[in-house]
Amino acid sequence: MSLLEDLKWRYATKKMNGQAVAQEKVDYIIEAARLAPTSSGLQPFKVIQITDPELKAKIQPIAYGQSQIVDCSHLLVFAAYDRYTQEYLDKVFEYSEKERNLPAGFSNDYKNMLWSKLSQQTQEEHFNHTARQAYIGFGLAIAAAAEQKVDATPMEGFDNEQLDKLLGLDKLGLKSVTLLALGYRDEANDWNVKLKKVRFSKEDFVIHLN
Amino acid sequence: MSLLEDLKWRYATKKMNGQAVAQEKVDYIIEAARLAPTSSGLQPFKVIQITDPELKAKIQPIAYGQSQIVDCSHLLVFAAYDRYTQEYLDKVFEYSEKERNLPAGFSNDYKNMLWSKLSQQTQEEHFNHTARQAYIGFGLAIAAAAEQKVDATPMEGFDNEQLDKLLGLDKLGLKSVTLLALGYRDEANDWNVKLKKVRFSKEDFVIHLN
Repeated sequence: MSLLEDLKWRYATKKMNGQAVAQEKVDYIIEAARLAPTSSGLQPFKVIQITDPELKAKIQPIAYGQSQIVDCSHLLVFAAYDRYTQEYLDKVFEYSEKERNLPAGFSNDYKNMLWSKLSQQTQEEHFNHTARQAYIGFGLAIAAAAEQKVDATPMEGFDNEQLDKLLGLDKLGLKSVTLLALGYRDEANDWNVKLKKVRFSKEDFVIHLN
Repeated sequence: MSLLEDLKWRYATKKMNGQAVAQEKVDYIIEAARLAPTSSGLQPFKVIQITDPELKAKIQPIAYGQSQIVDCSHLLVFAAYDRYTQEYLDKVFEYSEKERNLPAGFSNDYKNMLWSKLSQQTQEEHFNHTARQAYIGFGLAIAAAAEQKVDATPMEGFDNEQLDKLLGLDKLGLKSVTLLALGYRDEANDWNVKLKKVRFSKEDFVIHLN
Protein backbone atom coordinates (compact mmCIF):
# COMPACT_ATOMS: atom_id res chain seq x y z
CA MET A 1 0.00 0.00 0.00
CA SER A 2 1.09 3.53 -0.69
CA LEU A 3 1.35 6.21 1.96
CA LEU A 4 -1.88 7.82 0.75
CA GLU A 5 -3.71 4.51 0.98
CA ASP A 6 -2.29 4.03 4.47
CA LEU A 7 -3.48 7.50 5.49
CA LYS A 8 -6.97 6.76 4.18
CA TRP A 9 -6.99 3.46 6.11
CA ARG A 10 -6.09 5.04 9.42
CA TYR A 11 -8.51 6.90 11.65
CA ALA A 12 -8.56 8.21 15.20
CA THR A 13 -9.43 4.97 16.96
CA LYS A 14 -11.81 5.63 19.83
CA LYS A 15 -12.20 2.05 21.07
CA MET A 16 -9.39 -0.48 21.10
CA ASN A 17 -9.77 -4.22 21.66
CA GLY A 18 -6.86 -4.77 24.04
CA GLN A 19 -4.80 -6.89 21.64
CA ALA A 20 -1.09 -6.19 22.07
CA VAL A 21 1.01 -4.69 19.30
CA ALA A 22 4.26 -6.60 18.73
CA GLN A 23 7.23 -4.70 20.18
CA GLU A 24 8.92 -5.01 16.78
CA LYS A 25 6.16 -2.93 15.21
CA VAL A 26 6.31 -0.37 18.01
CA ASP A 27 10.06 -0.09 17.51
CA TYR A 28 9.42 0.54 13.81
CA ILE A 29 6.96 3.32 14.63
CA ILE A 30 9.34 4.99 17.09
CA GLU A 31 12.15 4.65 14.56
CA ALA A 32 10.18 6.77 12.10
CA ALA A 33 10.03 9.52 14.74
CA ARG A 34 13.74 9.15 15.43
CA LEU A 35 14.53 9.60 11.73
CA ALA A 36 12.40 12.76 11.50
CA PRO A 37 14.23 15.81 10.22
CA THR A 38 14.43 18.63 12.73
CA SER A 39 15.63 22.20 12.65
CA SER A 40 19.46 22.21 12.44
CA GLY A 41 19.32 18.53 13.37
CA LEU A 42 18.67 19.46 17.00
CA GLN A 43 16.15 16.66 17.68
CA PRO A 44 14.85 18.48 20.74
CA PHE A 45 12.35 15.84 21.75
CA LYS A 46 12.04 12.32 23.10
CA VAL A 47 9.53 9.51 22.82
CA ILE A 48 8.48 7.84 26.06
CA GLN A 49 7.07 4.33 25.73
CA ILE A 50 4.63 3.15 28.39
CA THR A 51 3.31 -0.41 28.64
CA ASP A 52 2.73 -0.91 32.37
CA PRO A 53 -1.03 -1.31 33.02
CA GLU A 54 -0.75 0.35 36.43
CA LEU A 55 0.96 3.40 35.00
CA LYS A 56 -1.56 3.60 32.17
CA ALA A 57 -4.37 3.42 34.74
CA LYS A 58 -2.83 6.39 36.53
CA ILE A 59 -2.65 8.33 33.27
CA GLN A 60 -6.24 7.67 32.24
CA PRO A 61 -7.85 10.24 34.59
CA ILE A 62 -5.24 12.80 33.51
CA ALA A 63 -6.48 12.22 29.95
CA TYR A 64 -10.16 12.80 30.73
CA GLY A 65 -10.83 9.10 31.17
CA GLN A 66 -10.29 8.21 27.52
CA SER A 67 -10.40 4.43 27.15
CA GLN A 68 -7.58 4.13 24.62
CA ILE A 69 -5.09 5.01 27.36
CA VAL A 70 -5.70 1.69 29.06
CA ASP A 71 -6.90 -0.38 26.06
CA CYS A 72 -3.83 0.41 23.95
CA SER A 73 -0.85 -1.88 24.49
CA HIS A 74 1.75 0.86 24.06
CA LEU A 75 1.26 4.49 24.91
CA LEU A 76 3.79 6.83 23.33
CA VAL A 77 4.36 10.24 24.88
CA PHE A 78 6.03 12.84 22.68
CA ALA A 79 7.88 15.28 24.92
CA ALA A 80 9.90 18.31 23.86
CA TYR A 81 12.65 20.13 25.74
CA ASP A 82 11.32 23.20 27.51
CA ARG A 83 14.29 25.26 26.27
CA TYR A 84 17.55 25.17 24.36
CA THR A 85 20.80 25.56 26.25
CA GLN A 86 24.37 26.06 25.15
CA GLU A 87 25.19 22.68 26.74
CA TYR A 88 22.54 21.01 24.62
CA LEU A 89 23.95 22.52 21.44
CA ASP A 90 27.43 21.38 22.48
CA LYS A 91 26.10 17.84 22.93
CA VAL A 92 24.35 17.81 19.53
CA PHE A 93 27.30 19.06 17.53
CA GLU A 94 29.95 17.06 19.41
CA TYR A 95 27.95 13.92 18.67
CA SER A 96 27.41 14.87 15.05
CA GLU A 97 31.10 15.63 14.52
CA LYS A 98 32.05 12.24 15.97
CA GLU A 99 29.48 10.39 13.86
CA ARG A 100 30.74 12.12 10.72
CA ASN A 101 34.43 11.75 11.55
CA LEU A 102 34.88 15.49 11.47
CA PRO A 103 37.48 17.25 13.61
CA ALA A 104 36.20 18.44 16.99
CA GLY A 105 35.03 22.02 16.73
CA PHE A 106 34.31 21.74 13.00
CA SER A 107 30.76 23.03 13.55
CA ASN A 108 31.69 25.78 15.98
CA ASP A 109 30.90 28.68 13.66
CA TYR A 110 27.48 27.30 12.85
CA LYS A 111 26.81 26.40 16.47
CA ASN A 112 27.79 29.86 17.70
CA MET A 113 25.62 31.52 15.05
CA LEU A 114 22.72 29.36 16.15
CA TRP A 115 23.24 30.08 19.83
CA SER A 116 23.58 33.81 19.28
CA LYS A 117 20.09 33.64 17.73
CA LEU A 118 18.56 31.28 20.31
CA SER A 119 20.03 33.12 23.29
CA GLN A 120 18.00 36.19 22.30
CA GLN A 121 14.75 34.26 22.44
CA THR A 122 12.52 33.66 25.44
CA GLN A 123 12.10 30.23 26.96
CA GLU A 124 8.57 30.22 25.58
CA GLU A 125 9.85 30.80 22.07
CA HIS A 126 12.27 27.93 22.54
CA PHE A 127 9.51 25.61 23.64
CA ASN A 128 7.23 26.64 20.76
CA HIS A 129 10.06 25.64 18.47
CA THR A 130 10.98 22.36 20.15
CA ALA A 131 7.29 21.36 20.26
CA ARG A 132 6.94 21.89 16.52
CA GLN A 133 9.91 19.62 15.88
CA ALA A 134 8.25 16.95 18.02
CA TYR A 135 5.18 17.22 15.82
CA ILE A 136 7.21 16.35 12.71
CA GLY A 137 8.20 13.12 14.45
CA PHE A 138 4.63 12.67 15.57
CA GLY A 139 3.42 12.92 11.95
CA LEU A 140 5.96 10.34 10.83
CA ALA A 141 5.03 7.97 13.67
CA ILE A 142 1.39 8.23 12.59
CA ALA A 143 2.41 7.34 9.02
CA ALA A 144 4.53 4.41 10.24
CA ALA A 145 1.71 3.01 12.36
CA ALA A 146 -0.67 3.15 9.40
CA GLU A 147 1.90 1.41 7.21
CA GLN A 148 2.21 -1.35 9.83
CA LYS A 149 -1.58 -1.61 10.09
CA VAL A 150 -1.38 -0.69 13.72
CA ASP A 151 -4.19 1.51 14.95
CA ALA A 152 -3.05 4.73 16.52
CA THR A 153 -4.95 7.48 18.26
CA PRO A 154 -3.30 10.91 18.28
CA MET A 155 -4.32 12.57 21.56
CA GLU A 156 -3.83 16.11 22.74
CA GLY A 157 -6.58 15.97 25.33
CA PHE A 158 -4.75 15.54 28.60
CA ASP A 159 -3.36 17.66 31.41
CA ASN A 160 0.25 18.19 30.33
CA GLU A 161 1.55 19.44 33.66
CA GLN A 162 0.05 16.57 35.62
CA LEU A 163 1.46 14.05 33.17
CA ASP A 164 4.91 15.64 33.31
CA LYS A 165 4.91 15.36 37.07
CA LEU A 166 3.66 11.78 37.10
CA LEU A 167 6.32 10.67 34.60
CA GLY A 168 9.08 12.83 36.06
CA LEU A 169 9.54 14.58 32.75
CA ASP A 170 9.85 17.97 34.45
CA LYS A 171 13.07 16.77 36.09
CA LEU A 172 14.46 15.97 32.64
CA GLY A 173 13.60 19.41 31.26
CA LEU A 174 10.94 17.82 29.06
CA LYS A 175 7.30 18.79 28.53
CA SER A 176 4.77 16.39 27.07
CA VAL A 177 3.14 17.72 23.92
CA THR A 178 1.08 14.87 22.53
CA LEU A 179 0.22 11.18 22.92
CA LEU A 180 -0.06 8.31 20.47
CA ALA A 181 -1.95 5.27 21.72
CA LEU A 182 -1.06 2.09 19.79
CA GLY A 183 -3.33 -0.94 19.61
CA TYR A 184 -6.04 -2.49 17.48
CA ARG A 185 -9.52 -1.21 16.75
CA ASP A 186 -12.57 -2.76 18.37
CA GLU A 187 -14.52 -2.67 15.13
CA ALA A 188 -17.88 -3.59 16.68
CA ASN A 189 -17.77 -1.00 19.43
CA ASP A 190 -16.00 1.98 17.90
CA TRP A 191 -18.51 4.65 16.82
CA ASN A 192 -15.79 6.42 14.86
CA VAL A 193 -14.80 3.54 12.59
CA LYS A 194 -17.85 3.82 10.36
CA LEU A 195 -17.84 7.60 10.03
CA LYS A 196 -16.59 9.06 6.78
CA LYS A 197 -13.15 10.66 6.97
CA VAL A 198 -13.73 14.37 6.48
CA ARG A 199 -11.13 16.77 5.13
CA PHE A 200 -11.51 20.11 3.40
CA SER A 201 -11.47 19.69 -0.36
CA LYS A 202 -8.26 20.14 -2.33
CA GLU A 203 -9.68 23.37 -3.73
CA ASP A 204 -10.12 24.68 -0.20
CA PHE A 205 -6.88 23.28 1.23
CA VAL A 206 -4.39 24.31 -1.45
CA ILE A 207 -3.68 27.87 -2.52
CA HIS A 208 -1.98 28.14 -5.90
CA LEU A 209 0.17 31.21 -6.41
CA ASN A 210 1.19 30.31 -9.98
CA MET B 1 10.44 0.61 -0.20
CA SER B 2 9.18 0.91 3.33
CA LEU B 3 8.66 4.23 5.09
CA LEU B 4 11.84 3.70 7.12
CA GLU B 5 13.85 3.06 3.97
CA ASP B 6 12.32 6.18 2.42
CA LEU B 7 13.26 8.22 5.48
CA LYS B 8 16.83 6.95 5.30
CA TRP B 9 16.97 7.83 1.59
CA ARG B 10 15.85 11.42 2.10
CA TYR B 11 18.09 14.21 3.32
CA ALA B 12 17.89 17.99 3.53
CA THR B 13 18.86 18.77 -0.05
CA LYS B 14 21.09 21.83 -0.16
CA LYS B 15 21.62 22.00 -3.92
CA MET B 16 18.96 21.13 -6.46
CA ASN B 17 19.51 20.61 -10.19
CA GLY B 18 16.56 22.59 -11.54
CA GLN B 19 14.70 19.55 -12.94
CA ALA B 20 10.95 19.96 -12.54
CA VAL B 21 8.89 17.63 -10.39
CA ALA B 22 5.77 16.33 -12.18
CA GLN B 23 2.66 18.11 -10.91
CA GLU B 24 1.13 14.69 -10.27
CA LYS B 25 3.81 13.94 -7.72
CA VAL B 26 3.43 17.34 -6.10
CA ASP B 27 -0.32 16.74 -5.84
CA TYR B 28 0.43 13.43 -4.13
CA ILE B 29 2.70 15.15 -1.61
CA ILE B 30 0.14 17.86 -0.84
CA GLU B 31 -2.55 15.19 -0.55
CA ALA B 32 -0.59 13.57 2.29
CA ALA B 33 -0.70 16.89 4.16
CA ARG B 34 -4.42 17.25 3.44
CA LEU B 35 -5.08 13.80 4.93
CA ALA B 36 -3.11 14.62 8.08
CA PRO B 37 -5.05 14.16 11.31
CA THR B 38 -5.51 17.39 13.25
CA SER B 39 -6.90 18.28 16.64
CA SER B 40 -10.72 17.87 16.56
CA GLY B 41 -10.43 17.70 12.76
CA LEU B 42 -9.96 21.47 12.63
CA GLN B 43 -7.33 21.44 9.86
CA PRO B 44 -6.26 24.97 10.75
CA PHE B 45 -3.66 25.31 8.03
CA LYS B 46 -3.21 25.59 4.29
CA VAL B 47 -0.53 24.65 1.80
CA ILE B 48 0.46 27.31 -0.70
CA GLN B 49 2.08 26.04 -3.89
CA ILE B 50 4.46 28.38 -5.70
CA THR B 51 5.97 27.67 -9.12
CA ASP B 52 6.41 31.11 -10.67
CA PRO B 53 10.17 31.83 -11.09
CA GLU B 54 9.66 35.56 -10.52
CA LEU B 55 7.85 34.99 -7.27
CA LYS B 56 10.47 32.46 -6.14
CA ALA B 57 13.16 35.02 -6.94
CA LYS B 58 11.40 37.53 -4.68
CA ILE B 59 11.24 34.96 -1.90
CA GLN B 60 14.92 33.98 -2.08
CA PRO B 61 16.28 37.07 -0.24
CA ILE B 62 13.57 36.63 2.40
CA ALA B 63 14.99 33.13 2.94
CA TYR B 64 18.59 34.25 3.43
CA GLY B 65 19.45 33.63 -0.23
CA GLN B 66 19.10 29.86 -0.02
CA SER B 67 19.44 28.41 -3.53
CA GLN B 68 16.75 25.75 -3.17
CA ILE B 69 14.10 28.48 -3.23
CA VAL B 70 14.82 29.17 -6.90
CA ASP B 71 16.25 25.77 -7.91
CA CYS B 72 13.25 23.81 -6.70
CA SER B 73 10.37 23.50 -9.14
CA HIS B 74 7.65 23.73 -6.50
CA LEU B 75 7.90 25.64 -3.27
CA LEU B 76 5.31 24.67 -0.68
CA VAL B 77 4.49 27.11 2.10
CA PHE B 78 2.78 25.67 5.16
CA ALA B 79 0.70 28.42 6.76
CA ALA B 80 -1.43 28.16 9.89
CA TYR B 81 -4.35 30.34 10.95
CA ASP B 82 -3.27 33.00 13.43
CA ARG B 83 -6.30 32.24 15.65
CA TYR B 84 -9.47 30.22 15.97
CA THR B 85 -12.81 31.95 15.65
CA GLN B 86 -16.36 30.86 16.31
CA GLU B 87 -17.06 31.33 12.58
CA TYR B 88 -14.24 28.98 11.71
CA LEU B 89 -15.58 26.30 14.03
CA ASP B 90 -19.05 26.78 12.50
CA LYS B 91 -17.53 26.24 9.04
CA VAL B 92 -15.66 23.09 10.08
CA PHE B 93 -18.59 21.37 11.74
CA GLU B 94 -21.19 22.44 9.16
CA TYR B 95 -18.99 20.94 6.46
CA SER B 96 -18.35 17.79 8.46
CA GLU B 97 -22.07 17.28 9.19
CA LYS B 98 -22.88 17.63 5.49
CA GLU B 99 -20.13 15.23 4.43
CA ARG B 100 -21.35 12.66 6.96
CA ASN B 101 -25.06 13.13 6.22
CA LEU B 102 -25.68 14.12 9.79
CA PRO B 103 -28.46 16.53 10.73
CA ALA B 104 -27.40 20.18 10.93
CA GLY B 105 -26.41 21.03 14.49
CA PHE B 106 -25.54 17.43 15.33
CA SER B 107 -22.08 18.54 16.54
CA ASN B 108 -23.25 21.62 18.42
CA ASP B 109 -22.54 20.28 21.90
CA TYR B 110 -19.02 19.29 20.97
CA LYS B 111 -18.44 22.52 19.07
CA ASN B 112 -19.67 24.64 21.99
CA MET B 113 -17.51 22.73 24.43
CA LEU B 114 -14.52 23.31 22.15
CA TRP B 115 -15.24 27.00 21.75
CA SER B 116 -15.75 27.53 25.46
CA LYS B 117 -12.21 26.20 25.88
CA LEU B 118 -10.66 28.06 22.96
CA SER B 119 -12.35 31.37 23.79
CA GLN B 120 -10.44 31.41 27.08
CA GLN B 121 -7.10 31.18 25.33
CA THR B 122 -4.97 33.99 23.97
CA GLN B 123 -4.41 34.48 20.27
CA GLU B 124 -0.83 33.36 20.80
CA GLU B 125 -2.01 30.09 22.35
CA HIS B 126 -4.28 29.57 19.36
CA PHE B 127 -1.44 30.09 16.92
CA ASN B 128 0.89 27.79 18.84
CA HIS B 129 -1.78 25.14 18.45
CA THR B 130 -2.58 25.75 14.78
CA ALA B 131 1.14 25.77 13.94
CA ARG B 132 1.62 22.38 15.57
CA GLN B 133 -1.19 20.93 13.47
CA ALA B 134 0.52 22.30 10.36
CA TYR B 135 3.66 20.43 11.39
CA ILE B 136 1.81 17.10 11.38
CA GLY B 137 0.92 17.76 7.75
CA PHE B 138 4.48 18.90 7.14
CA GLY B 139 5.82 15.59 8.47
CA LEU B 140 3.46 13.63 6.25
CA ALA B 141 4.41 15.70 3.19
CA ILE B 142 8.08 14.94 3.91
CA ALA B 143 7.25 11.22 4.05
CA ALA B 144 5.24 11.43 0.82
CA ALA B 145 8.05 13.21 -1.03
CA ALA B 146 10.54 10.54 0.07
CA GLU B 147 8.17 7.79 -1.06
CA GLN B 148 7.89 9.47 -4.47
CA LYS B 149 11.68 9.85 -4.65
CA VAL B 150 11.29 13.59 -4.83
CA ASP B 151 13.91 15.57 -2.98
CA ALA B 152 12.53 17.92 -0.40
CA THR B 153 14.19 20.51 1.78
CA PRO B 154 12.37 21.42 4.99
CA MET B 155 13.17 25.10 5.64
CA GLU B 156 12.42 27.22 8.67
CA GLY B 157 15.08 29.80 7.88
CA PHE B 158 13.11 32.71 6.45
CA ASP B 159 11.50 35.94 7.59
CA ASN B 160 7.93 34.86 8.27
CA GLU B 161 6.41 38.33 8.43
CA GLN B 162 7.99 39.45 5.17
CA LEU B 163 6.83 36.30 3.43
CA ASP B 164 3.29 36.68 4.76
CA LYS B 165 3.16 40.22 3.40
CA LEU B 166 4.60 39.26 0.02
CA LEU B 167 2.12 36.42 -0.42
CA GLY B 168 -0.83 38.30 1.11
CA LEU B 169 -1.24 35.61 3.75
CA ASP B 170 -1.81 38.20 6.46
CA LYS B 171 -5.02 39.24 4.71
CA LEU B 172 -6.23 35.63 4.89
CA GLY B 173 -5.50 35.37 8.62
CA LEU B 174 -2.65 32.94 7.87
CA LYS B 175 0.94 32.92 9.09
CA SER B 176 3.65 30.97 7.32
CA VAL B 177 5.34 28.43 9.57
CA THR B 178 7.61 26.40 7.34
CA LEU B 179 8.65 25.74 3.74
CA LEU B 180 9.18 22.58 1.74
CA ALA B 181 11.18 22.99 -1.46
CA LEU B 182 10.56 20.17 -3.96
CA GLY B 183 12.99 19.25 -6.71
CA TYR B 184 15.85 16.91 -7.46
CA ARG B 185 19.28 16.78 -5.88
CA ASP B 186 22.36 18.05 -7.70
CA GLU B 187 24.44 15.08 -6.60
CA ALA B 188 27.78 16.48 -7.79
CA ASN B 189 27.41 19.86 -6.12
CA ASP B 190 25.56 19.18 -2.91
CA TRP B 191 27.95 19.06 0.06
CA ASN B 192 25.22 17.55 2.21
CA VAL B 193 24.49 14.49 0.08
CA LYS B 194 27.60 12.60 1.14
CA LEU B 195 27.40 13.37 4.83
CA LYS B 196 26.20 10.63 7.14
CA LYS B 197 22.68 11.11 8.47
CA VAL B 198 23.06 11.72 12.18
CA ARG B 199 20.40 11.00 14.76
CA PHE B 200 20.66 10.34 18.48
CA SER B 201 20.79 6.61 19.17
CA LYS B 202 17.65 4.70 20.04
CA GLU B 203 18.95 4.37 23.61
CA ASP B 204 19.17 8.13 23.82
CA PHE B 205 15.95 8.92 21.95
CA VAL B 206 13.53 6.52 23.61
CA ILE B 207 12.66 6.50 27.29
CA HIS B 208 11.09 3.24 28.49
CA LEU B 209 8.81 3.52 31.49
CA ASN B 210 8.10 -0.19 31.76
